[in-house]
Amino acid sequence: MYCIGIDIGGTSVKAGIVDRDGKILKKESVPTDVAGGSDKIISDIARLILSLADPADSAFAGVGIGCPGAVNSGTGVVDRAYNLKWHKVALAEKLFCTVGKPIKVSNDANAAALGETMFGVSGKYRDTVFLTLGTGVGGGIVLNGRLYEGNEGKGAELGHVVIDTDGELCSCGRRGCLEAYCSATALIRDTKKAMEQNKDSLMWKFSPELDKVDGRTAFECSKKGDKTAEAVVGRFVMYLGEGILNFANIFRPQAVILGGGVCAQGDYLISKLKDYCMERNYGFADTPHVDILTAKLGNDAGIIGAAGMIFAELD
Amino acid sequence: MYCIGIDIGGTSVKAGIVDRDGKILKKESVPTDVAGGSDKIISDIARLILSLADPADSAFAGVGIGCPGAVNSGTGVVDRAYNLKWHKVALAEKLFCTVGKPIKVSNDANAAALGETMFGVSGKYRDTVFLTLGTGVGGGIVLNGRLYEGNEGKGAELGHVVIDTDGELCSCGRRGCLEAYCSATALIRDTKKAMEQNKDSLMWKFSPELDKVDGRTAFECSKKGDKTAEAVVGRFVMYLGEGILNFANIFRPQAVILGGGVCAQGDYLISKLKDYCMERNYGFADTPHVDILTAKLGNDAGIIGAAGMIFAELD
Repeated sequence: MYCIGIDIGGTSVKAGIVDRDGKILKKESVPTDVAGGSDKIISDIARLILSLADPADSAFAGVGIGCPGAVNSGTGVVDRAYNLKWHKVALAEKLFCTVGKPIKVSNDANAAALGETMFGVSGKYRDTVFLTLGTGVGGGIVLNGRLYEGNEGKGAELGHVVIDTDGELCSCGRRGCLEAYCSATALIRDTKKAMEQNKDSLMWKFSPELDKVDGRTAFECSKKGDKTAEAVVGRFVMYLGEGILNFANIFRPQAVILGGGVCAQGDYLISKLKDYCMERNYGFADTPHVDILTAKLGNDAGIIGAAGMIFAELD
Repeated sequence: MYCIGIDIGGTSVKAGIVDRDGKILKKESVPTDVAGGSDKIISDIARLILSLADPADSAFAGVGIGCPGAVNSGTGVVDRAYNLKWHKVALAEKLFCTVGKPIKVSNDANAAALGETMFGVSGKYRDTVFLTLGTGVGGGIVLNGRLYEGNEGKGAELGHVVIDTDGELCSCGRRGCLEAYCSATALIRDTKKAMEQNKDSLMWKFSPELDKVDGRTAFECSKKGDKTAEAVVGRFVMYLGEGILNFANIFRPQAVILGGGVCAQGDYLISKLKDYCMERNYGFADTPHVDILTAKLGNDAGIIGAAGMIFAELD
């Protein structure tokens, strides 16, 4: 038995045959034709599916799709995806006409969260909170081995939780959201600000021009002992730590899993986060431990997680 | 078919026979004998149960218990309850020996959340977030009609979510928790502070001595147009609004339900909260509405919710 997982990104649509163990047997992709409109992208997806598998094959259990934006996972309608310029696109219904197999559509961060929990970080967790730290901060919640998505699939917006009332302006219009402190965008903003205030920082050697600053600048220079960089990393860890502690107190999950580019920092980031959280864990004497770790599936998390949505329905 | 619901409070242990519609058919209570130790309170609870119902009656489905503190709802062990001076009390096991019926123990705010969702606010919600605004801020999460409690029942600590990093000190040791702004304790602290800074405030007429200030002082004077009181209420609404928006974005529930003494302010509080949240709702154009309303069951929420835990298991 196998599924097809589809990961719709801003630049490419990736598809893969995924087996019951979360292994990708075959992969294909096409550029995302945003200018072509939603029907063009949907026909591209149909072509990928039909190229990978035969709908008449009884071992082909269904198609899971992770899509950016606001997705109604109950109806399979993409209510709004800014990157794709989509509004109210009946993705599941249109694909079902072509493929005739179960189609499940969710937000891409939700799909990745499920993939990591089912197949990535070891498969030993049933309750996890997943944060992707990228341009924004995405979130996914897996409870009892299944995605929790909220009413119309519009929950798990974990980047849009205010941790500093009246703080930094967020893309959502509120102030002080986790995303406004812990996205790569925020990290780069804070790195640049610190560099401007400290012209002798080692970070100027690592990124001689402000335009070249990225999510690694502060981390790499912090590892070399640059005080200004250490302060930027310390602030990033503080805010992310507060966010993780919040999700620990809300869900008391078995693990908080971090994905996205910043997680390439691996143990250097994780050990700092663990130290921060350990000291502040609510009722730590009687409270079960919450693991903090980085995602393992990398770029394949989207495809595997999307397929996982179908497997989870079958369980 | 009926259950017995038990609500263990700091001053009294309340018990009631509850029918399938959440109606209390008969109630009894005894003072909470904290000095007598856990075994004394457990024998008092056993006596209440045996006085209300006959364990041999097949219509008697079980006993649900709401207990303050850190409760492992999986094992029925109360890990720690400061008010009761309990530590690692095997409540479910000990009562089962006497009663021989299913026993379910949870944190009291969790039980109240379930009671409100099943029987209180109308029964039309399946996914709700419940906040009790009292001495502290307690929380309960109901997803798909069932309590979500987290690992070992230690989740849903919704009062201990930081909304203002490095803000007011909280009882849990962190700074800036929702509890540090939206408990009655915090409201009274802020009311007193505002009164000390504004000697001509109407609040001095309402509460001539600072010792007499309670959760109503600022609200009652705000209703009469006192600017200082309005500012205190405005700040309370801002923080509570931020907390509610956070839970809306995390869970996208059908409703956020508010319990506790402050909710006696009813529509005056709710309409201000709705206005605050409406303006800041994430992606409001495509996002399902989240109701904000006050609890309906009052003092009986504990008993009814505790019984509800047994009914929910039977569903």
